[in-house]
Amino acid sequence: MAATLIDGKTISNTIKQEVKGELETLVPKVGRPPGLAVVLVGGDPASATYVRGKRKTCAALGVTSIAHDLDASTDRETLLDLVRSLNEDDAVDGILVQSPLPAHLDESEVVLLIDPAKDVDGFHPVNVGKLLLGVETFVSCTPAGIRELLVRSGVETRGAHVVIVGRSSIVGKPLAALLMQKADGADATVTVCHSRTRDLAAITRTADILVAAIGRPRFVTAEMVRAGAVVIDVGINRVEDAAAKRGYRLVGDVDFDAVREVASKITPVPGGVGPMTIAMLMRNTLTAYRRRCGV
Amino acid sequence: MAATLIDGKTISNTIKQEVKGELETLVPKVGRPPGLAVVLVGGDPASATYVRGKRKTCAALGVTSIAHDLDASTDRETLLDLVRSLNEDDAVDGILVQSPLPAHLDESEVVLLIDPAKDVDGFHPVNVGKLLLGVETFVSCTPAGIRELLVRSGVETRGAHVVIVGRSSIVGKPLAALLMQKADGADATVTVCHSRTRDLAAITRTADILVAAIGRPRFVTAEMVRAGAVVIDVGINRVEDAAAKRGYRLVGDVDFDAVREVASKITPVPGGVGPMTIAMLMRNTLTAYRRRCGV
Repeated sequence: MAATLIDGKTISNTIKQEVKGELETLVPKVGRPPGLAVVLVGGDPASATYVRGKRKTCAALGVTSIAHDLDASTDRETLLDLVRSLNEDDAVDGILVQSPLPAHLDESEVVLLIDPAKDVDGFHPVNVGKLLLGVETFVSCTPAGIRELLVRSGVETRGAHVVIVGRSSIVGKPLAALLMQKADGADATVTVCHSRTRDLAAITRTADILVAAIGRPRFVTAEMVRAGAVVIDVGINRVEDAAAKRGYRLVGDVDFDAVREVASKITPVPGGVGPMTIAMLMRNTLTAYRRRCGV
Repeated sequence: MAATLIDGKTISNTIKQEVKGELETLVPKVGRPPGLAVVLVGGDPASATYVRGKRKTCAALGVTSIAHDLDASTDRETLLDLVRSLNEDDAVDGILVQSPLPAHLDESEVVLLIDPAKDVDGFHPVNVGKLLLGVETFVSCTPAGIRELLVRSGVETRGAHVVIVGRSSIVGKPLAALLMQKADGADATVTVCHSRTRDLAAITRTADILVAAIGRPRFVTAEMVRAGAVVIDVGINRVEDAAAKRGYRLVGDVDFDAVREVASKITPVPGGVGPMTIAMLMRNTLTAYRRRCGV
């Protein structure tokens, strides 16, 4: 029996509608909408697409999107000055600097300068540290979105063995930190695997919940999945496909067709984890706005 | 065949001698010794003992220990003002506020105020975050000491499966963050277990390296350990013992006598992880001094 699909598109729409509804109540009280500053440096097409999506969602939910599109040759001081001015701008609740930056700019220096209270991406080390310590903070959007997918699909994380394949700083490591906490929607036994893991399949087969976040197309095969496991696919990989209009199509890190015959629930790619990221960004922006305005 | 003992006392002495040797070269160049401010609030006897040990070690290695013993009734502003003044004092390289504080004081507020560049305990969230992100930082002393024990005992962590039982903010979680990084003395597959873990023994038996940090006497039994595993015991528990002079003795979280018959290497309690903590504090203080003085 094929696995049930975890529908990220529908769940993310639900969250966006919740945010919109809350804002309809809050904005008249505060007297201004939340402001999200989105900084884009250079013309990387993928980044431009992401940023367009974020700005469009802001508009749909009643969040003011403050666009800063800088030239690829922007120097360090100009960018740092912009971040400083956004930190001080009372109408800005959230600040997002789209990654990747051009090579001459140091991303971690920029992130460290963002006011942690406006760090809606959850990338500032002080917020990452609070996450690991189990202190209330901004959780970065992809890990937060994965937890939300699990909770809203009725997947019990408490006591479950979550195996995460991949240890990136934006998915694997913060997701592990999030799910090992003593908290609702967490409280899992967590294992982090990676390129150095020996006998990977033996470990992934012990997972109640298996998260694939390595960035290799169809890396997780059916033999690596225990019957009845929940499978979350974070990968978005382009593979050539002559039959597709653009000459490629998107596949995840999971061999979807085979694994869905083994798993109990599975996220598709696209339409699984992907759409959750913007929804969680909107929720983090709402949280920043609430805290800053005391509502 | 009984396991080899991992001798924390000897290893910690070696590290302390290394620190002392480095300081003998550095201090004449800099013109002043490193300064470690140790703040003790109230008269908790265990804390007083720890603090005495730290100050004694400072004296032995050529580190100036700056003692601030405050009354248990010290108010919040007095303590915060002290931390602010230590942050600004150029002769202070490291600041340590001994835990636990009296109940009317908020530890996390105090830790957040410490200059991260002087946070030799590695407790500031920005340092914890950098640890998870894999950025050079102060690693808190117990996790750093455990890594050092493994490395100096010739235990290969790369590709090993490390199972940590316990998810405290001072041992389990930062140790997991440390050992999962792509780095020498790390690069392990890491699992974090805790009170909610189902079938704990099945998971601990998969460990190449098993770390017990739950705070329950003799919790880890021989049946939970795979033959040939390396066992690190972080627990220090008092158990009643009428035959002992003080009426109690110290035991770890591991059933030592039985587990040593199964493991390949094991840390004793006392004399294993315990002595490493002060040694790593001294090394962190040396690092802070080096960075601050540019030597």
